[in-house]
Amino acid sequence: MRILVVGASGTIGQAVVERLSGRHDIIRAGRSGADVQVDITSEESIRAMYETVGSVDAVISATGGAHFGPLTDLTPELNQIGIDSKLKGQVNLVLLGLESVRDGGSFTLTTGIMMDDPIRQGASAALANGGVKAFVHAAAIEMPRGIRINSVSPNVLIESLEKYGPFFRGFEAVPASRVATAFEKSVEGAQTGQNYEVY
Amino acid sequence: MRILVVGASGTIGQAVVERLSGRHDIIRAGRSGADVQVDITSEESIRAMYETVGSVDAVISATGGAHFGPLTDLTPELNQIGIDSKLKGQVNLVLLGLESVRDGGSFTLTTGIMMDDPIRQGASAALANGGVKAFVHAAAIEMPRGIRINSVSPNVLIESLEKYGPFFRGFEAVPASRVATAFEKSVEGAQTGQNYEVY
Ligand SMILES: NC(=O)c1ccc[n+]([C@@H]2O[C@H](COP(=O)([O-])OP(=O)(O)OC[C@H]3O[C@@H](n4cnc5c(N)ncnc54)[C@H](OP(=O)(O)O)[C@@H]3O)[C@@H](O)[C@H]2O)c1
Ligand SMILES: NC(=O)c1ccc[n+]([C@@H]2O[C@H](COP(=O)([O-])OP(=O)(O)OC[C@H]3O[C@@H](n4cnc5c(N)ncnc54)[C@H](OP(=O)(O)O)[C@@H]3O)[C@@H](O)[C@H]2O)c1
Repeated sequence: MRILVVGASGTIGQAVVERLSGRHDIIRAGRSGADVQVDITSEESIRAMYETVGSVDAVISATGGAHFGPLTDLTPELNQIGIDSKLKGQVNLVLLGLESVRDGGSFTLTTGIMMDDPIRQGASAALANGGVKAFVHAAAIEMPRGIRINSVSPNVLIESLEKYGPFFRGFEAVPASRVATAFEKSVEGAQTGQNYEVY
Repeated sequence: MRILVVGASGTIGQAVVERLSGRHDIIRAGRSGADVQVDITSEESIRAMYETVGSVDAVISATGGAHFGPLTDLTPELNQIGIDSKLKGQVNLVLLGLESVRDGGSFTLTTGIMMDDPIRQGASAALANGGVKAFVHAAAIEMPRGIRINSVSPNVLIESLEKYGPFFRGFEAVPASRVATAFEKSVEGAQTGQNYEVY
């Protein structure tokens, strides 16, 4: 398969690329230093990426940011960061990429455990995750030409504990390789509308 | 209690007001013909509403719109309608209203069954519902001064079948009075972080 991985240079993206590159043709996307440049917060940039890349069998999104901070400090403006990136950025990869995905292809987006198992300072990221999960679940029943759509919801990664550990005390961190396995199931399996919990 | 009901003139809002007005002091809000005017898609308007209303014990949101249409016709622009209204509009009622809610008070937002039990043309509304649900679940653990937050997720209402029936064939429509009961539990009970499914 020809697979576009957005966020290919990230902690999760790298593990996904490593897992899939033996069997598949991978196109790496990101804001910098990738095969194709894209900023998912810009519709124009997403359109340009798909124009450059042409047809693919699968689109994987392993990206999307959100503001972390105490709820009492969360302003509409700070909340907008996650809405523009993790939520709308990923959803727009689907809405603007439908015609670039071949019959029977797939989209796989990324959510995250905070929507199910909340942490302090995580309300805005949870909002974005929950929006993506519900969109995936609902969009699946209307995808054209046998195209499937799923999301992967990782626990905190062992590889990310140095960065995020203090937010996730008491969480059973998972290796990036287990998260890559869920992406593998989404891309190579036949299920749709699922949110694979890697908890 | 002093209770602000946003969307008080709507099908759900009316049932909620009818249920609570015997025991409580209700302030009706909406874009037109209410005690206080508000357009939840405008932060400025939400701020002005809270300034006018002063302190309350509970804020109920029984409002929020989204675009219904086939997934293949869903553009980022059409998707924005639900993000601005049902998702951000309701979340901003919380973010901008925290200081107007008294110690031990509550927020209750509205989601909807489509996020769990998808229907055709409902992906954008599902996205908004899922975002609200996850925000509520996560925000609950960080609310200050004992303030609680829940959401109510109604099935299609019997009272709305004339309008929405064709979208919801095979769904077991519920009476508005059952939905009002869930709001009652949220406002007068002690639970937080819940999404009450009225299915
Ligand atoms: N790491 C964890 O423990 C964990 C747990 C649960 C969920 N997640 C979620 O998984 C996703 C990836 O996490 P990660 O830790 O792998 O992230 P990461 O290491 O920070 O990598 C992010 C990747 O996305 C790219 N990127 C960032 N902003 C972008 C944008 N606006 N447009 C296009 N590409 C962009 C980055 O490359 P450029 O900078 O070159 O653009 C990079 O390739 C995120 O949504 C995160 O919330 C992570
Ligand atoms: N009815 C159902 O079967 C059903 C099922 C599941 C979920 N829901 C959800 O429940 C909520 C209420 O549904 P409903 O059927 O009761 O709606 P409705 O009858 O159309 O009433 C909507 C209410 O919200 C107000 N409103 C609309 N836009 C507003 C805005 N931008 N700012 C402030 N107020 C606004 C309206 O008054 P003004 O026009 O004067 O502003 C009205 O009071 C919606 O989120 C809907 O998705 C409904």
